[in-house]
Amino acid sequence: MVDFSNALHLVRERAPLVQCITNFVTVNDCANIILAAGGSPSMAHDIREVEDAVSGVRALVCNMGAIEDIDAMVLAGKRANQLGTPVVLDPVAAGGTRLRRESAKRLLEKVRFTAIRGNASEIRSLARQGCGGSGVDVSRGDAVTEENLEEAVRLVRALARETGAVIAVSGALDLICDGTRTAVVRNGCPTMARITGSGCMLTTLIGAFCGASPEEPFEAVCAAMGAMGVCGELAEERRLANGTGNATFRTDLIDALFNLTECCLKERVRYELYQR
Amino acid sequence: MVDFSNALHLVRERAPLVQCITNFVTVNDCANIILAAGGSPSMAHDIREVEDAVSGVRALVCNMGAIEDIDAMVLAGKRANQLGTPVVLDPVAAGGTRLRRESAKRLLEKVRFTAIRGNASEIRSLARQGCGGSGVDVSRGDAVTEENLEEAVRLVRALARETGAVIAVSGALDLICDGTRTAVVRNGCPTMARITGSGCMLTTLIGAFCGASPEEPFEAVCAAMGAMGVCGELAEERRLANGTGNATFRTDLIDALFNLTECCLKERVRYELYQR
Amino acid sequence: MVDFSNALHLVRERAPLVQCITNFVTVNDCANIILAAGGSPSMAHDIREVEDAVSGVRALVCNMGAIEDIDAMVLAGKRANQLGTPVVLDPVAAGGTRLRRESAKRLLEKVRFTAIRGNASEIRSLARQGCGGSGVDVSRGDAVTEENLEEAVRLVRALARETGAVIAVSGALDLICDGTRTAVVRNGCPTMARITGSGCMLTTLIGAFCGASPEEPFEAVCAAMGAMGVCGELAEERRLANGTGNATFRTDLIDALFNLTECCLKERVRYELYQR
Repeated sequence: MVDFSNALHLVRERAPLVQCITNFVTVNDCANIILAAGGSPSMAHDIREVEDAVSGVRALVCNMGAIEDIDAMVLAGKRANQLGTPVVLDPVAAGGTRLRRESAKRLLEKVRFTAIRGNASEIRSLARQGCGGSGVDVSRGDAVTEENLEEAVRLVRALARETGAVIAVSGALDLICDGTRTAVVRNGCPTMARITGSGCMLTTLIGAFCGASPEEPFEAVCAAMGAMGVCGELAEERRLANGTGNATFRTDLIDALFNLTECCLKERVRYELYQR
Repeated sequence: MVDFSNALHLVRERAPLVQCITNFVTVNDCANIILAAGGSPSMAHDIREVEDAVSGVRALVCNMGAIEDIDAMVLAGKRANQLGTPVVLDPVAAGGTRLRRESAKRLLEKVRFTAIRGNASEIRSLARQGCGGSGVDVSRGDAVTEENLEEAVRLVRALARETGAVIAVSGALDLICDGTRTAVVRNGCPTMARITGSGCMLTTLIGAFCGASPEEPFEAVCAAMGAMGVCGELAEERRLANGTGNATFRTDLIDALFNLTECCLKERVRYELYQR
Repeated sequence: MVDFSNALHLVRERAPLVQCITNFVTVNDCANIILAAGGSPSMAHDIREVEDAVSGVRALVCNMGAIEDIDAMVLAGKRANQLGTPVVLDPVAAGGTRLRRESAKRLLEKVRFTAIRGNASEIRSLARQGCGGSGVDVSRGDAVTEENLEEAVRLVRALARETGAVIAVSGALDLICDGTRTAVVRNGCPTMARITGSGCMLTTLIGAFCGASPEEPFEAVCAAMGAMGVCGELAEERRLANGTGNATFRTDLIDALFNLTECCLKERVRYELYQR
């Protein structure tokens, strides 16, 4: 069993410093979600200082939306690997352009990732180094559903084994796999896809959880995914009650994490280990 | 007559993917306003991938606030022109510095724009390639008023004919002109000038509307201007009722678009075709 | 005595145009805090136009978080010095990496700053050109407290005399020193450290106040520090009343400044001139 509340407890207790090399669209939300979780953010991304910066942190997050910073990610990632610091990858729009496919390939060759989180199109693109996705959003045929769950599990399990990373696919159903165990998380809500940055924030949160529990990356990733989904539901309840929209939803989502108790997370998370 | 509600309907129905090459100050708001409208944003701006990225989108927005990305805008804009994809320009602070004046000139020479949206100082600067504006805000003497309306219409009409673009001037009075027809929209509120990004968001929204109605750019621009003005008024009503400030106003403005119905837009928009 | 309400009055009356060369994490918040205060923001940072841009502004803010823009800061800062325009420095993470230490040194050598605002670790790093801080947050041992106040005052006084700048240290206790007078401000709340950008916003606000009162930089800095602290308290009251989190706190903080009256500032600010 995954101990969700303990994983959250450790983020609050250890307050990990998390360095993010991330894109300019959602960088502010990523910093604030780390602070909401109880961690401390550093957004240093200049290639001249990333190695220096990474030596003091508990986790490194590489977000491929910062496509101009791939060299910095490689440098920082290698240094983090040397230090045994967890490194998390968000392969934003991995299949969207040739530049993205090549950048993803290069990162996977040069850096050992602790966890990789993407939507189904992005993860499929990594798995087959093919062409998925027409941008940052998931393509309809790629989504993980109850119907194609078995095929999706096979795919993430193979990618987890190949990369050595915990693979996390977010969507209506979340899949988390470390090559052996596979968890399915069924939290969240569709409004999460109506704000920019819900994916980036989730990956950043995974960084914070991995930084607090480096010895248990599978648990850390599961707990971060569960926490984000539960917070999405709490924000959605407020949106429906107050008649607000996607901008307030974003604010409420971060607030929900700020106020999330271990007890609430444990009670509301809907997850199971996949048994087939 | 402009069919405002149909233009909004098409954004929701067609959910256009809109690529923005835009500035780092307001990029997050621009992505969220596209999502609020019902579209899907891509903020890819790296010169190595913009041509590749633009091939899959329904509209391209070039925001001159990203002054370091002018080369990428030219490349992406030319590709969009080849593909027949609408391209929208925001000439941010066009008259503010020599670099801006030269960049605006270059963009107008290299790319055919479907629409150009600026404040009165920016549009005047394009029209006369002279020196308007002392930054991103409109200079007092430049604003369109009931008194100088006729002169302003002549100026935008000439610019529309010269560029082939729908010209949109936003302010207390909005003017929209395609060289033949001119519309005046009288929605909005002064608080819109107390947040950063209301202009950038408006131009981005024009991109989403043009992406959904590429065959009717004049209607698309009018509807986007009207929608933004109405949402500004709705957000202002909330601000006055709740005693909040400009930061909440920004959130409420995006929320208002998220919840804007075709019926509400149609009822609240105050517009007329200019007849002289 | 510092006339806090007059300093705020002048920001509203003179509506200074403030140019910021600042980091991509919090740039949007910095623009909105200037607008909330009653000023007008320009975020032009391209090295090709910063000199041109700075010639029309009332204050320049250099935020070292934009570590890739140090050359632009030097150019713009020198031009501002020639023009007699106030220049404010935020030495973000000054002691965090070698690149930061060198950049801080270079800026201090090339530009005369009107004011420098940092947390205790950053200011200590400038003072001793040593190694403080493990990122952007203050290190525990560096914080200014009632116990080490005398030592901290000596340090900021020496730095103020060396640089000719008003030195401002923000924290639970704020210190402001122009080399002769030292003020202690006791406003604010711990939640300010749970959002990204509270430091950047504060420095930006100092820029707006200095732009409105260039002849009285000590008063301007004190008033900006007091205003930010009072707004933090007002936002905290709302957070506690509404059960919201750090994201809403950020919004409420900016709103509070938007609505801050001279009377409220004067009544709520807790400050004293340090007499030893």
